[in-house]
Amino acid sequence: MSTIRILGIDPGLRVTGFGVIEKHGGRLVYVASGCIKSKDKDGLPERIKTLFAGLGEVIATYGPDHAAVEKVFVNVNPQSTLLLGQARGAALSALVHAGLPVAEYTALQVKQAVVGQGKAAKEQVQHMVVKLLSLPGAPTADAADALACAICHAHGGLGLGALGGLAKAAGYRVRGGRLIG
Amino acid sequence: MSTIRILGIDPGLRVTGFGVIEKHGGRLVYVASGCIKSKDKDGLPERIKTLFAGLGEVIATYGPDHAAVEKVFVNVNPQSTLLLGQARGAALSALVHAGLPVAEYTALQVKQAVVGQGKAAKEQVQHMVVKLLSLPGAPTADAADALACAICHAHGGLGLGALGGLAKAAGYRVRGGRLIG
Repeated sequence: MSTIRILGIDPGLRVTGFGVIEKHGGRLVYVASGCIKSKDKDGLPERIKTLFAGLGEVIATYGPDHAAVEKVFVNVNPQSTLLLGQARGAALSALVHAGLPVAEYTALQVKQAVVGQGKAAKEQVQHMVVKLLSLPGAPTADAADALACAICHAHGGLGLGALGGLAKAAGYRVRGGRLIG
Repeated sequence: MSTIRILGIDPGLRVTGFGVIEKHGGRLVYVASGCIKSKDKDGLPERIKTLFAGLGEVIATYGPDHAAVEKVFVNVNPQSTLLLGQARGAALSALVHAGLPVAEYTALQVKQAVVGQGKAAKEQVQHMVVKLLSLPGAPTADAADALACAICHAHGGLGLGALGGLAKAAGYRVRGGRLIG
């Protein structure tokens, strides 16, 4: 049975979440997760360096085969959008520099894949990540989003069709695309 | 007399301009310039890879001591701002990955440094770049902007005060902060 190791990324300038999982056939296994933080007081080049080098370390440590990156939102504040874009550019650079194939998923796709519906609350995503990966406790929000993105990739970026079964296997009932218990 | 080699960058997703100059004491010498283009039809990770790897080659070829990057504008279209931000993040990543100290300048600072006033037209910047570096012909607009950013850094990112003399030395007259002939 083939094993694929997937690195999920939730990019941000202040905090970039990462999560590593393995897919053994149809089974998902947690490997690691965490976040890389850059300091507000540092200049932008220094912050980009922190993110780029931090992700480089994560890649060197866990040796993923694939990467999956969450697509980011356009912020109400254009200046924030520009900063977020630069952080995401640094994350993508670290991934492609390491020779990883990179897939991109919208938050909607990630939520559909993990919870079974695109409008799921953050807590529901966190909850399902814990369930699906049999974690002993809840990871931080950024790490959970990154793990959710990796899970989405493990399921081919497919939505409810592929994952109704996954939610069910974890003891959840899905009705009309919604998680109901 | 110490020599400093400066790499100027005008970042963009479709076209990133670069320009390399040397500062010998108070004299500026042209080394190289050009641009790195990514294809519209490629996915974003592929385009980021093209920019990151392309700048890596430029750095390996010309071995600059410093880098100077133009600060980008927030676009009217938020999606364009996000894409531009990602391209700039890739450029910054390539520079910091190579261990280069990176300075950032606004378009206003660059124009003030090169032409003597912040509202100079693009053609005026191009014209002064040709003059100041004694180029045999005009570089493309992106390469000229990158060279202008490098020139700005060579003069400590300072405005008119430092550069009135530079414009004059190139045979131009400056009056009230404006280039007049």
